[in-house]
Amino acid sequence: MPNPTAAMLVIGDEILSGRTRDANMHHLAGVLTERGITLAEVRMVQDEQPAIVAAVNDLRARFDTVITSGGIGPTHDDITADAIGAAFGRPVDVRDDARTLLAEHYARTGKELNEARLRMARVPEGAVLIDNPVSVAPGFSVENVHVMAGVPSVFRAMVESLLPELTGGQPLLSRSLRVNRGEGDIAGPLGEIAKAMPAISFGSYPFVDNGAYGANIVMRSTDPTALEAAVAALREAFPGATE
Amino acid sequence: MPNPTAAMLVIGDEILSGRTRDANMHHLAGVLTERGITLAEVRMVQDEQPAIVAAVNDLRARFDTVITSGGIGPTHDDITADAIGAAFGRPVDVRDDARTLLAEHYARTGKELNEARLRMARVPEGAVLIDNPVSVAPGFSVENVHVMAGVPSVFRAMVESLLPELTGGQPLLSRSLRVNRGEGDIAGPLGEIAKAMPAISFGSYPFVDNGAYGANIVMRSTDPTALEAAVAALREAFPGATE
Repeated sequence: MPNPTAAMLVIGDEILSGRTRDANMHHLAGVLTERGITLAEVRMVQDEQPAIVAAVNDLRARFDTVITSGGIGPTHDDITADAIGAAFGRPVDVRDDARTLLAEHYARTGKELNEARLRMARVPEGAVLIDNPVSVAPGFSVENVHVMAGVPSVFRAMVESLLPELTGGQPLLSRSLRVNRGEGDIAGPLGEIAKAMPAISFGSYPFVDNGAYGANIVMRSTDPTALEAAVAALREAFPGATE
Repeated sequence: MPNPTAAMLVIGDEILSGRTRDANMHHLAGVLTERGITLAEVRMVQDEQPAIVAAVNDLRARFDTVITSGGIGPTHDDITADAIGAAFGRPVDVRDDARTLLAEHYARTGKELNEARLRMARVPEGAVLIDNPVSVAPGFSVENVHVMAGVPSVFRAMVESLLPELTGGQPLLSRSLRVNRGEGDIAGPLGEIAKAMPAISFGSYPFVDNGAYGANIVMRSTDPTALEAAVAALREAFPGATE
């Protein structure tokens, strides 16, 4: 059975303008791959409701799980909750359990639970809250769409909270060999090996190191024995390759 | 007139598996923003023809320019040229001018222009080559889709080659103020200011610094005078904000 699939939707002008470098995608990719879930697509869209709605509805129909980041804070440009509500055709309102979480947190820290902060208790009808141990304001899930904050420390904490809920697959194992020859010399023999071992996914990732061309050949499989055989075949074809 | 729009398509399993951290998106975002072109969407898809074709056809219909990265090398997993051909319904074959570029380059460097390397001269019918001063094998453009290598040094060089061809807009200016208060305190006054100044795009990007909450408020506009007024309004609302 193929592994479950996931997509990520990164919401925010600050990434697309180049002001901020996204850190969450790389983190999520690693966590999902470890767990045997294939991250099959990532999208990054602006803080605009039609763009978010279109992306969410396309991705949730095509993949088992969708994880979003960004746009769930208290400010005027945080429009993700409303966009998710619109995507599912569900009303969005302050919910009592989310309000209670926030009220207790701000009472402890001596801050006012004002109108802006209360926005963070607004979730679509029927959503399930995602625990936020870092800064309390929760994420939420609607069906297979899981909505998380964009601040990296909070995003990571929410991913940890969500992971036990996700059905994983067989962990995808990988091995990598570094070959200090140009891809043009590697491609022929590698293509033959890849054709002969269809159970292994072979990727060739070129690099330039001090002016010299080389490539990392990455082999991926859920089968450790097949993976060993692939490494052996590559070592024979490319003597001197290093792990 | 609104600025021209662009989308980026990142092609490659190595990004989605978390093995490699994409560096090209952040670079392209900065370059386009400087030039007054709005990077409106980014997609990252696997090395699979149907995924690439669907993304290319969706993006090229919706945005003025599409830039892709990855999958144009000599190995079996480099399938971008064929996917772009399929997206446009154009045959893909070795082209004489591209072959000549490669033949001259490999003659100079004493390497063999073998079958694998010759794959890098395959482009869709009617494509325009994009100069690659780093490693010669060219990128190519078909209509509004510009196809570039994924290796960051080559990607950047190809972007430089392409930029003079792109129609820019008015450069988007930005100013940023750091406010050392939680977004929940900032949101109310900021929302009022944003409503009063519709020509300015205000973004609030929260951070946690040594346990203390704060936010960078970013203002963007093509109008420098309006931008000054926005900075002044924010400074009045948040005394102690720093640039």
